[in-house]
Amino acid sequence: MRIPPNMAMWKAVGNGILEGISRVADLDASKLTITLSKTLKPIPKDETLLFGNIMSDHMVVAEFDPEIGWSSPEIKPLGPLSLDPTSSCLQYGTSVFEGMKAYIGPDGEPRLFRPDMNMARLARSAERMALPPFSTDQVLALIKQLIIVDRRWIPLSSGYSLYVRPVVMGTRTGLSVVASDRATLCIMLSPAGPYFRSGAKPTVSVLAVSETIRAWPGGTGEHKVGLNYSPGFLPLRVVQKQGYDLVLWLWGDDMKVTEAGAMNVFVVVARDDGGLDLLTPPLDGTILPGVTRDSILALAKAHTAGETTLPGLETQDSQRVRLHAQERAFTMAEMVQWSTEGKILEAFGAGTAVVIASIGKIGWKGKDLDLPVHEGLGPIANAFRTRILDIQEGREVWKNWSLLVTKL
Amino acid sequence: MRIPPNMAMWKAVGNGILEGISRVADLDASKLTITLSKTLKPIPKDETLLFGNIMSDHMVVAEFDPEIGWSSPEIKPLGPLSLDPTSSCLQYGTSVFEGMKAYIGPDGEPRLFRPDMNMARLARSAERMALPPFSTDQVLALIKQLIIVDRRWIPLSSGYSLYVRPVVMGTRTGLSVVASDRATLCIMLSPAGPYFRSGAKPTVSVLAVSETIRAWPGGTGEHKVGLNYSPGFLPLRVVQKQGYDLVLWLWGDDMKVTEAGAMNVFVVVARDDGGLDLLTPPLDGTILPGVTRDSILALAKAHTAGETTLPGLETQDSQRVRLHAQERAFTMAEMVQWSTEGKILEAFGAGTAVVIASIGKIGWKGKDLDLPVHEGLGPIANAFRTRILDIQEGREVWKNWSLLVTKL
Repeated sequence: MRIPPNMAMWKAVGNGILEGISRVADLDASKLTITLSKTLKPIPKDETLLFGNIMSDHMVVAEFDPEIGWSSPEIKPLGPLSLDPTSSCLQYGTSVFEGMKAYIGPDGEPRLFRPDMNMARLARSAERMALPPFSTDQVLALIKQLIIVDRRWIPLSSGYSLYVRPVVMGTRTGLSVVASDRATLCIMLSPAGPYFRSGAKPTVSVLAVSETIRAWPGGTGEHKVGLNYSPGFLPLRVVQKQGYDLVLWLWGDDMKVTEAGAMNVFVVVARDDGGLDLLTPPLDGTILPGVTRDSILALAKAHTAGETTLPGLETQDSQRVRLHAQERAFTMAEMVQWSTEGKILEAFGAGTAVVIASIGKIGWKGKDLDLPVHEGLGPIANAFRTRILDIQEGREVWKNWSLLVTKL
Repeated sequence: MRIPPNMAMWKAVGNGILEGISRVADLDASKLTITLSKTLKPIPKDETLLFGNIMSDHMVVAEFDPEIGWSSPEIKPLGPLSLDPTSSCLQYGTSVFEGMKAYIGPDGEPRLFRPDMNMARLARSAERMALPPFSTDQVLALIKQLIIVDRRWIPLSSGYSLYVRPVVMGTRTGLSVVASDRATLCIMLSPAGPYFRSGAKPTVSVLAVSETIRAWPGGTGEHKVGLNYSPGFLPLRVVQKQGYDLVLWLWGDDMKVTEAGAMNVFVVVARDDGGLDLLTPPLDGTILPGVTRDSILALAKAHTAGETTLPGLETQDSQRVRLHAQERAFTMAEMVQWSTEGKILEAFGAGTAVVIASIGKIGWKGKDLDLPVHEGLGPIANAFRTRILDIQEGREVWKNWSLLVTKL
């Protein structure tokens, strides 16, 4: 299957089509109105938190009308949305979303991790689903204001954070099978603990499946659209029934590895020259361009270039572990071969929700691949997780990755 | 890409997993409560009707709770649903639906066309999305009751009907990326006229695209899930901007023809022996198993076997036109070759909403394929459209395809 030309054709036309509605009101955070909840919920203890099961007190809501544009955004008590049953998002799955996290730094101030990447991806996702356009700097401004309003919900323990979920839903009514010219932006917050039961040093098992395919070139796998996830719910049940935590998604006749559950996948393979290959599948249209994925690749390159030293990756003679980060496709056959030769040192998944989770077991064709056993995370995964948490939680400054949440 | 084994693995496990919740209350149409709207809307004139832009007065709603099961269904005035913003259907696209039509027969009684096929497909769609199970005979009973309540909305003109839209939405709250153990069933009605502006003898143009792919083996293309449709909205805008009505979806390195817009595709190709090949892509996982598609194949076989004679397909010497209906893959290269050789006699699309629409133009690689020009529909498409409307509208009886809508 050939790789499509990066949607350039659609983009050019899409922009043209949106010309008309670009003359209506843009989303405008300066018009925000705030209605506080009269009864605030108790804050759960950090150690009781899992992922996404508790929401904070408030939400942002704004609506797009094709004649008017974006309404003045509101912060108001979290509550149900009133939606026409023919709404596009209910009938045809026109929802796009983002996942980000807010942290309290040592200075006591809230901060976000590389929100520019999430905002750019949100705009791309909305464009792919032909949803009304919006200025992402205004979305980010609204996210910041919501975080300030619900700041008491940000957990303080390391490894805990306030998960931020912006979602844009198509709300065109009627059953026509066409793009939605109406939308609702909703931003919600959820205090988050460990994504997996295995806790702060998460280790998961995955079962590689070929019966179902998560994404394919020319599909929507490279976008953060809600509809990428639900087709994986039944396969997830199946692999969990077989004792695995997550699905390892494959693609193509040659069974290329793509993603694990909702995480990007990395494999550390020993090279003949004593260095380590850090491999992750390329952004060929089937892979979500994860923020944590990008951060790992950038940190690996900086480490190998000597711009930084990742924690624990300095050897006794002060030689740094040479990490050769590469975006390149690899297949289950290669995984089996590397595993048989004892060359796989680590495998791990990366994503905003989980940060980094070690992959301790990979099932394939009725067997499990031989992978090294680590206490929690292996040294490479641990180096990235430690450094990324240090940056996210404000203990370390790296480029402009950590953004202070300030008032408008 | 190999074809997955028809989801047998998932099905076996899925059923096992659902064992627990099969002990809670099933959907039960006998518990239906009816609250009529106090103000009924005026019925639009048939000739003003398009597709899906006007809804009737009432809807069916029932909700599934994992502890209780299905609630007593209600018929009540059509109105907004109150949905938690974290609902699975809004975040992850867990909606499945059906499209059916009700007609008034010459006896004055309302009827449905092959609803058993829609009900079986709805159950398969819900299973694929890991939604809570339900008895489809109860869904059908509720559809019938809603049609009886809103029977005045059924248009009487031939080619007009009352479109029936059942949808099951996942309503689990929270942001976990897991199957929804809650759901809402909603059934709505919409009086429907011609699907395309070209009216009662619809002719559409399609542009074959390879940049975006509708469905792939191992995906959800063979199910009627909402999320199959929205990824096509942007490509639809693009082809419409280029002057075509619909996208012709392709699949694979060899550019196999799959579907056109939301219709199954048929091509009539002249054979060397004087007969006609009636080709449509096989149900390989990328094709929606359409009810109209199935009906065309069945009627073609019955015609060629001499069980019936399709209107207009008897030649002057009483020899019937020999139709060789075949579910077989064909590529754009074959289409170009047949077109160059003058062998394509007709191409048409089939689906519940459109019934049958002639495909008058097929764009591919900057050119249009040479297709015969017909006044409206070609003779084969017209034969099927005429016969199917005759059966749907009760003027002709064929097997048990038309089901009278009777009270519980």
